[in-house]
Amino acid sequence: MALDGHVIAVCGGVGGAKLAFGLARTLEPGRLTIVCNTGDDFEHLGLHVSPDIDTVVYTLSELSDRERGWGLAGETWNFMDQIRRFGGADWFNLGDRDLAMHVQRTQRLAAGERLTTITAALAGALGIAHRLLPMSDDPVRTCVATDAGDLPFQEYFVRARCEPRVRSIRFEGAAQARISPELSETLARRDIGAVIICPSNPYLSIDPILAVPGLREGLAATGAPVVAVSPIVGGEAIKGPTAKLMRELAVDPSGVSVARHYRGLLDGLIIDHVDAAEAAKLEAEGLAALVTGTVMQSDEDRIRLAREALAFAGRLKGAR
Amino acid sequence: MALDGHVIAVCGGVGGAKLAFGLARTLEPGRLTIVCNTGDDFEHLGLHVSPDIDTVVYTLSELSDRERGWGLAGETWNFMDQIRRFGGADWFNLGDRDLAMHVQRTQRLAAGERLTTITAALAGALGIAHRLLPMSDDPVRTCVATDAGDLPFQEYFVRARCEPRVRSIRFEGAAQARISPELSETLARRDIGAVIICPSNPYLSIDPILAVPGLREGLAATGAPVVAVSPIVGGEAIKGPTAKLMRELAVDPSGVSVARHYRGLLDGLIIDHVDAAEAAKLEAEGLAALVTGTVMQSDEDRIRLAREALAFAGRLKGAR
Repeated sequence: MALDGHVIAVCGGVGGAKLAFGLARTLEPGRLTIVCNTGDDFEHLGLHVSPDIDTVVYTLSELSDRERGWGLAGETWNFMDQIRRFGGADWFNLGDRDLAMHVQRTQRLAAGERLTTITAALAGALGIAHRLLPMSDDPVRTCVATDAGDLPFQEYFVRARCEPRVRSIRFEGAAQARISPELSETLARRDIGAVIICPSNPYLSIDPILAVPGLREGLAATGAPVVAVSPIVGGEAIKGPTAKLMRELAVDPSGVSVARHYRGLLDGLIIDHVDAAEAAKLEAEGLAALVTGTVMQSDEDRIRLAREALAFAGRLKGAR
Repeated sequence: MALDGHVIAVCGGVGGAKLAFGLARTLEPGRLTIVCNTGDDFEHLGLHVSPDIDTVVYTLSELSDRERGWGLAGETWNFMDQIRRFGGADWFNLGDRDLAMHVQRTQRLAAGERLTTITAALAGALGIAHRLLPMSDDPVRTCVATDAGDLPFQEYFVRARCEPRVRSIRFEGAAQARISPELSETLARRDIGAVIICPSNPYLSIDPILAVPGLREGLAATGAPVVAVSPIVGGEAIKGPTAKLMRELAVDPSGVSVARHYRGLLDGLIIDHVDAAEAAKLEAEGLAALVTGTVMQSDEDRIRLAREALAFAGRLKGAR
C-alpha cells in the first residue's frame, strides 16, 4: 500500500541522517519535513556549531565524507593546524570548508535571525530542497551526568570519547524551549501520513527533540502512524555509544528496549534480521514489527530502508 | 653614533611592516615597541579582522607570503570557496590558516579581553618577542569620503580597489579613543631614543594613529628625534594608493609633501636616491634629510634601512 500525505522524520546525526537521505530520495521535497536535534549544539571557538544539522545537511547534499563518517569530503585542516599554533582548543575538529557553515550561522544568529531560517538558507544554498527544521529556535543543551562529572554533550561525546559511565542525561533549556512557527504549522497539517523516528540514539539524539514542550504530543496528535527504526542491531549500536549507554542506564540494548523507550508514541518498530526473534515480543506488547536489513552502507540501502519504512507506516495506517 | 635607548616605531601594513621587520632584527626585544594602526580593523563575516596588526605579526614571524604581499605563505582558500557556495561575502579574502587569527581574536574580544593583550598573546604564540601595541583598545574606523560615497576603509581599499576618487578621510571613534595603559607607559619612558614613522600611507595608516587623542603629543613629548621614511619614491608609492590619494587631495606626491604632512612632529625624513634633489628643500624647511635606498625587497634591505634610520636618529639626537 503506497503511503499518502506528508512525512515527518525525526533525527539526530549520522545514523539518522542516512535514513533521512533515503527518505529525501524517495519523497518529493513537498512531502518531507526533517526535524533535527539541536541538543548537541554548542559554542566552540566563539562559533555556533550545530553538529546534527550539519551532518544532515552534508549527507543530503552528498558533500559528506562517507569514510570518516562526519564532516565534508575533500576537507582540509589548516585552520585547526594554526589554532594549535595559537594554543587554542583543538579537541573538536573544524575543517576549513566546514568552517564556512559555522561562520555564516554564527553571524546570522548574532544578527538576530532564527536558527530555522538560517538552516533553510544554508541548506538551500547547498541544493537541499527538502525542509529541514531544527527542533526549536531556542537553545537546548544536552548535558550528560557521568562518573567523571557533568559534561556538556560534546565534551562527553568528542572530548571524552563517550568513555565516562553515564548516570543520567538532562536537556538544559528544554522546558523553556518553544516549537518554531514552521514546526507548529507542520504538526498542524491534516495530511501527515507518517512520523518516522530515524535510527539515532534514543537517549542522546531523539529524547532532546521529544523534550521540547508540545513536540511529542504534537507528533502523536497528527494521528499518523509513528514508526521507528531501531539503532540497535544484535545488541550493539551500528555506530556510537547507544548500546554502551543503555547498559550504563541498566537497560538491555535491544529493539524491545528501544520500543519501550518510545512507549505511548510508537506504533511500529523496524528491526534487523539478526533480531528477528524480537518481533514476537514487540507484537506481544501491542506494537507492529517489521524485520528487514537495517544496516545502511550504500545509497541503495538507505533508499530501500526508507521505502520499507514508508510502506510499513502505510500498512499501519491502512489497518486502522 | 650608535643610538641608545628604546625605539618606538609607528606603522601601518605592508610597507611599514617591512621596516618594522628590519628594526626587530636590529634591536633586542626590550628595545623596540611597534605601535600599529587599527583604523583598518573591521568586522567581516562576524569576525574581527585587524589587517595591519596581522600583516606586522605575519611579517615579523616570517610567516607572510612575500610574493602575494599579504597573508600567510602556503595558505589555502577552501573556507572562502565554501563561503562562495553559500553566497556569502567574498570580496575580502580570508585564508584557512589566517582564519585562526581572526577567530581567536574575535572570541577573546567577545570575552571582554582588550585588543592589546590579545595581540600580545597571539603574536607571542607565533614567536614574536618584540612588543606590538595596537594604537588603542577602543574602536577607530577609517572612513573614506569618495566620489562614490562614504566608504569604510576596507570597502574603499579592497572592494573598490582604491578606484574611487578620495575627497577626505575621517577616523570615526578617534576622538573617544584612549591610549592603552601599555602605550601610556611606553610614551612615559625616559629612555626613548627615537621615534620611527615607517613608510606607511601617511593619510590612511599613520594619521589614524596620530588621531588618537594624546598620541601625537605623547610621541613629541618623548623628546626623542622623530624620523620618517618616505613612502613616496620618484613621485609614486612603492605599493598601494598613497601617490594617487595625494594627487586626489591636491598634494604633490613627494618627500617634501610627506614631511609637510608630519610638520611639527618630524625632525628628519629619509628619502630615496631618486629623490636626492629634495634633500635641499627639506633642509630649507628646517628638517634633516637622509638620502639612501628606501625600496625594501630583501631582508637585507629591510635591516640596512632600519640601521640607517636608527643611525640617522642617533645623529639628530647627538646634534642637539
